[in-house]
Amino acid sequence: MNSLIDQVGTESDFHDDQLLLPAVEDAYGGVIVEMNETMNSERFFLLLRASLFKWKILEGFRYHHAEPHYIMLVHWIPKTADTIPANASHRIGIGAIILNDIGELLVVQEKNGRLKGTGIWKIPTGVVDQGEDIFRAAIREVKEETGIDADFVDVVGLRETHNCFFGKSDIFFLCMLRPLSFKLQKQELEIEAVQWMPLEEFAAQPFVQKNVLFKSVYELCLAKKNGNYVGFTPKPIKSGLGDEISYIYVDTLALPASST
Amino acid sequence: MNSLIDQVGTESDFHDDQLLLPAVEDAYGGVIVEMNETMNSERFFLLLRASLFKWKILEGFRYHHAEPHYIMLVHWIPKTADTIPANASHRIGIGAIILNDIGELLVVQEKNGRLKGTGIWKIPTGVVDQGEDIFRAAIREVKEETGIDADFVDVVGLRETHNCFFGKSDIFFLCMLRPLSFKLQKQELEIEAVQWMPLEEFAAQPFVQKNVLFKSVYELCLAKKNGNYVGFTPKPIKSGLGDEISYIYVDTLALPASST
Repeated sequence: MNSLIDQVGTESDFHDDQLLLPAVEDAYGGVIVEMNETMNSERFFLLLRASLFKWKILEGFRYHHAEPHYIMLVHWIPKTADTIPANASHRIGIGAIILNDIGELLVVQEKNGRLKGTGIWKIPTGVVDQGEDIFRAAIREVKEETGIDADFVDVVGLRETHNCFFGKSDIFFLCMLRPLSFKLQKQELEIEAVQWMPLEEFAAQPFVQKNVLFKSVYELCLAKKNGNYVGFTPKPIKSGLGDEISYIYVDTLALPASST
Repeated sequence: MNSLIDQVGTESDFHDDQLLLPAVEDAYGGVIVEMNETMNSERFFLLLRASLFKWKILEGFRYHHAEPHYIMLVHWIPKTADTIPANASHRIGIGAIILNDIGELLVVQEKNGRLKGTGIWKIPTGVVDQGEDIFRAAIREVKEETGIDADFVDVVGLRETHNCFFGKSDIFFLCMLRPLSFKLQKQELEIEAVQWMPLEEFAAQPFVQKNVLFKSVYELCLAKKNGNYVGFTPKPIKSGLGDEISYIYVDTLALPASST
């Protein structure tokens, strides 16, 4: 074994040695410092300096990422190129396209954001929560914003935008859903108004005429109504690790029969 | 105007007032502290306490995110619900499917990672860099790993996996590319071997038989060869802000003629 702790002593040595920070070895030959007790900054500094020296860390740490309750700093100890995985780079959003039996589109006006106060009708949209599946986020947002229960049909397109927030990017999935209920119940906090709107009325909005994404929503609706547009349908698969289920999205209808 | 700085004084007041941290107003009615000079921790603490008091901040900050050279802490001052955008939640990967004139698949063996030493042949894969377009990442990875120049054709599927690294998720786009050159030149650092492989030989690998993602690659190749699989093609669009170009990916062939 080549781990750091093997090079400098066993784990129990660390606990015996009060001049080092308490540390355990991680799965990649690195060291995780776990502080269970508070100490004053002077003692922390002394222990950190001694620990870094012992672990042969000569250069600085860099920030890797932070979540609300912790920050992770990293330092690549080997002389090889740093292969620590990059921080998350994207936020994922969804837009839900839902047509009722007579071909009307489910649309909302928002209380906040860029379109606030413009009177523009748009499809329900939202951000995919961390750990949430794309198709579940689409179903959830529609229910929250409009009160409509819906089945997920397919991903019919996507848009990638860069430098959206703090230098990060955004992927926005256009999703087709099938309504299971029709009684509208708008969310008070975010939604000004909600309705089923004739498709031509949606398309006639001046904003839709000049916005490619909005225009694509209209064209996708037309193509779906004509029955000649098929997107990607989620199919549960086992991910490599353990029993966790992932989803692969493909046009299952166009694949050879063996895949179903 | 309702900004914080308006409530407590002008920006120049801040600079005149040596008891506050130097700060500028951001576009959302918040305050950005910009420290251009070092100070000792005692003075920093005094100024921070005075500044927080003046800016009416009574509760604690939380970490929002961090990049290699900075960390961002946030605190929501109004009494309303916190609507600060969530941190980035996903990393984006690509897998490149490339068939040559006689229907052979471009495959590699990797020097590192989960499949290292297994002898398994796989399609070239990689991580989309921050700010990089999905289709450009696919072209780049193929060039880097195999030496092959290629055009992007379409996104033919995707897979979403959760809890991949530090609680974050991963979206992996399966992309079809068309080769423009055929001379193989493997990347020494990451690639053990590269070849054009008959599709049946790829499919006959035991690993491919039991791995849904690998099997989907084979099925997508069959469907593409038969000409009955169409994915999403990138189309440049102006994003709302400035002249920056984004890309929308849809099945343009299936959309009404007006969209082209």
